[in-house]
Amino acid sequence: MLSQHDVISDLAELLGADIVVAPDASNIVRHMSDFGVRGDPAVAILALTYPRDTQQVAAILRYCNQRQIAVQPQGGMTGLVGGAVPVRPCVVVCMERMRAIREIDTASATMTVEAGVVMEAVQRAAEGAGMFFPLDLGGRGSCQIGGNLSTNAGGNRVLRFGMARELVLGLEAVLADGTVISSLSKVIKNNTGYDLRQLFIGSEGTLGIITAVVLRLFAKARHVCTGISAVDHYQGVLDLLQRARTGFGPQLTAFEVMWPQFYQIGTVGLGRKPPLEPGYGAYVLIETMGFDPEADQRRYEEIIGAAMEAGIVRDAIIAQSQREASELWAVRDSPGEWQRSAHWPQLSFDVSVPTGEIGDLIGQIGATLEARWPTLQALYFGHVADGNLHVSVGMAGHSVPELEIERAVYELVSGRRGSISAEHGIGSLKREFLHLSRSPEEIALMRTIKQAIDPNGILNPGKIF
Amino acid sequence: MLSQHDVISDLAELLGADIVVAPDASNIVRHMSDFGVRGDPAVAILALTYPRDTQQVAAILRYCNQRQIAVQPQGGMTGLVGGAVPVRPCVVVCMERMRAIREIDTASATMTVEAGVVMEAVQRAAEGAGMFFPLDLGGRGSCQIGGNLSTNAGGNRVLRFGMARELVLGLEAVLADGTVISSLSKVIKNNTGYDLRQLFIGSEGTLGIITAVVLRLFAKARHVCTGISAVDHYQGVLDLLQRARTGFGPQLTAFEVMWPQFYQIGTVGLGRKPPLEPGYGAYVLIETMGFDPEADQRRYEEIIGAAMEAGIVRDAIIAQSQREASELWAVRDSPGEWQRSAHWPQLSFDVSVPTGEIGDLIGQIGATLEARWPTLQALYFGHVADGNLHVSVGMAGHSVPELEIERAVYELVSGRRGSISAEHGIGSLKREFLHLSRSPEEIALMRTIKQAIDPNGILNPGKIF
Repeated sequence: MLSQHDVISDLAELLGADIVVAPDASNIVRHMSDFGVRGDPAVAILALTYPRDTQQVAAILRYCNQRQIAVQPQGGMTGLVGGAVPVRPCVVVCMERMRAIREIDTASATMTVEAGVVMEAVQRAAEGAGMFFPLDLGGRGSCQIGGNLSTNAGGNRVLRFGMARELVLGLEAVLADGTVISSLSKVIKNNTGYDLRQLFIGSEGTLGIITAVVLRLFAKARHVCTGISAVDHYQGVLDLLQRARTGFGPQLTAFEVMWPQFYQIGTVGLGRKPPLEPGYGAYVLIETMGFDPEADQRRYEEIIGAAMEAGIVRDAIIAQSQREASELWAVRDSPGEWQRSAHWPQLSFDVSVPTGEIGDLIGQIGATLEARWPTLQALYFGHVADGNLHVSVGMAGHSVPELEIERAVYELVSGRRGSISAEHGIGSLKREFLHLSRSPEEIALMRTIKQAIDPNGILNPGKIF
Repeated sequence: MLSQHDVISDLAELLGADIVVAPDASNIVRHMSDFGVRGDPAVAILALTYPRDTQQVAAILRYCNQRQIAVQPQGGMTGLVGGAVPVRPCVVVCMERMRAIREIDTASATMTVEAGVVMEAVQRAAEGAGMFFPLDLGGRGSCQIGGNLSTNAGGNRVLRFGMARELVLGLEAVLADGTVISSLSKVIKNNTGYDLRQLFIGSEGTLGIITAVVLRLFAKARHVCTGISAVDHYQGVLDLLQRARTGFGPQLTAFEVMWPQFYQIGTVGLGRKPPLEPGYGAYVLIETMGFDPEADQRRYEEIIGAAMEAGIVRDAIIAQSQREASELWAVRDSPGEWQRSAHWPQLSFDVSVPTGEIGDLIGQIGATLEARWPTLQALYFGHVADGNLHVSVGMAGHSVPELEIERAVYELVSGRRGSISAEHGIGSLKREFLHLSRSPEEIALMRTIKQAIDPNGILNPGKIF
């Protein structure tokens, strides 16, 4: 085994001294934790590397592969499951210096960027070119596009634009042995053999390090309508979803459901005036994005109005300004403020089941918690049209082991063939629950692919499986 | 090597006599050709099999894998590149008996079907449930959904709904060794390890046989607007595309460009009255699908009107009825009638380059043909917003070897990092040109994956690479 000193001096010689940094107490902290997992300080980082281009990434991987040294790829460290947190002695590869926006091609509606570009920089560059990049999530100011793709990020606009996977036309990645797989294509249609992009998207850096991508851009909407509708029960949510889909078609960009206790905490629980009275069965924030401002606003009012006349919607508020829209979104986005509410600390879940079953799943989770730990309280909210439910269990004053609650919830999700990680990935945190969403045959096939592409297992070891 | 007789009696014993058929002159024809490639009659089919369920497919593959017998998966045989045409002695697995539509879930907006269901049956079942399945192409009456996915079919609505890949939520497939990989998930968000669906979509049956899928459904549009606009040159096409994208947003479902010689053949060349005068630089069929009939039609007229005032569109016609819309589409769909025109026989191409470069590519192809074979005439048309260009070279009275023309065109496409097969796949027909669209590193990685998943190479040998 090479010493830390050897590795650093080898890499400095290979790449130049400015690319390699020796880890010490002052520089290591931000490389040892993400937003969900605090790393084990006993794990040794052999070197921190900050490559400037794809060839340097390739040189680092080639060096490490020949010596069977583990490699930890890192982006903005905003993950929630420890996907980029080292668990073995390793060389860390930080992508932050690869932050060029290489090209915006408005005719192709594409942007070619390096993997270390921050999401918000992509969004702004698109806007600067009069276009729109739809991927968006809370970490936008620091997460990097390479990390977004390696985790197949979801976020706020999946209903209309899909997951990160669906926003990629071309991709370049470096394999464990340093081979560069470059396919920076700008075309939507390309049926020439296997779609290798898909190996790297969502595999959490275990099959290769993404170095550059061609992203899809879209036309920027001219008008946004936002409102909250109150319904009596989950069947009302489903009826309203049906009306929203058939009424708005592809203009429907958000259908966010908040259950009563969530609504309570997100409004009065945080000292905010509720936009609609508390006490209904569920609250639905519906957003549309369109290109015909007057017709869009009229249509929004018509469709919600018709749902009220049909008795599905019991009360509704429709924003008349950007400021009012922001106030409605603030209720949905209130989890970011929970630290100052009674619902803190909390244990959160990000699961998926078929949309029609979410109401039943909530009933089951509630009954299970009630039976086993009667004093625990859970809140529910989610991107229901995507089948995605967030559950948050208040842990204040409780000593129930988190692992037991997790197991109980994930087993209910598994029973409905759901996903135990809708958008956050597996990382190290959910490894032991992977079998609840994927069959032994699926996991064996994942291992076969891993073994074939990274036979020494150097890339992000200890993650996913 | 087992004899044909042994294989048939073994499989009949394993599966039942009704599943296995001995090939003979009367039943073999439809299994030996697709729409583009006529098979070599010297290739021996050992047995024709017609499994009724996934377990039978698994049993056939397990049997063949143990004996290293090649397996030829077959769907509706509507491919254009020989992907399902046997090139080695093999057992044929026909999916046509697996044609159950298992479930339509309107809340999840999904349909679960077996792989042998014909595309048109999926479209109709969606319509019957008040929804819409957008995948559509000329072979709709006989192509099967399993084949559509294994070739990642494109077709008429990619601009809005994406390729087949983007319409799949869950998938079940059988590996070469008979292992069933089942992930019939109905949720959009599922970040639990590698996305194994992607291995089977677009890999032309070389990594597994797809047996069932969960498809995405959409709301059915309430109004369709269709028109043709004439512009002076390719810059006018790009300007109009920009206006269509920003004016119609996600309602834009078709942007089909026809160059003058194509327009000539498709109208007067077939005895049809041209909807707009001949002689313009290009003709663009624009279609929108929306949910607000009156506003949509008004908006269509406004946007085309504004493009005329700006001098981009020189003349335009907008359909006022379904019948008029069909007449406009008939011009675009005229290749189906070319057999009765002067432009027959023809050699056709399906390539992609970045949208902004299509005008230049046409110039290059024209100049190359002119320089080498001055009497050859080429027509151009395509899904320009997808970067997809179709080229058709009239071969009447010519003895130029097709292979030489293909090489010349594909090299120009390759020089622009384009795709030599936008939607048709590689099969056996384009194998020797694969290297013009994919790098040696990419092809090596494809082979690594193939070797890992199908180590005996039994699945659809002789295709792609």
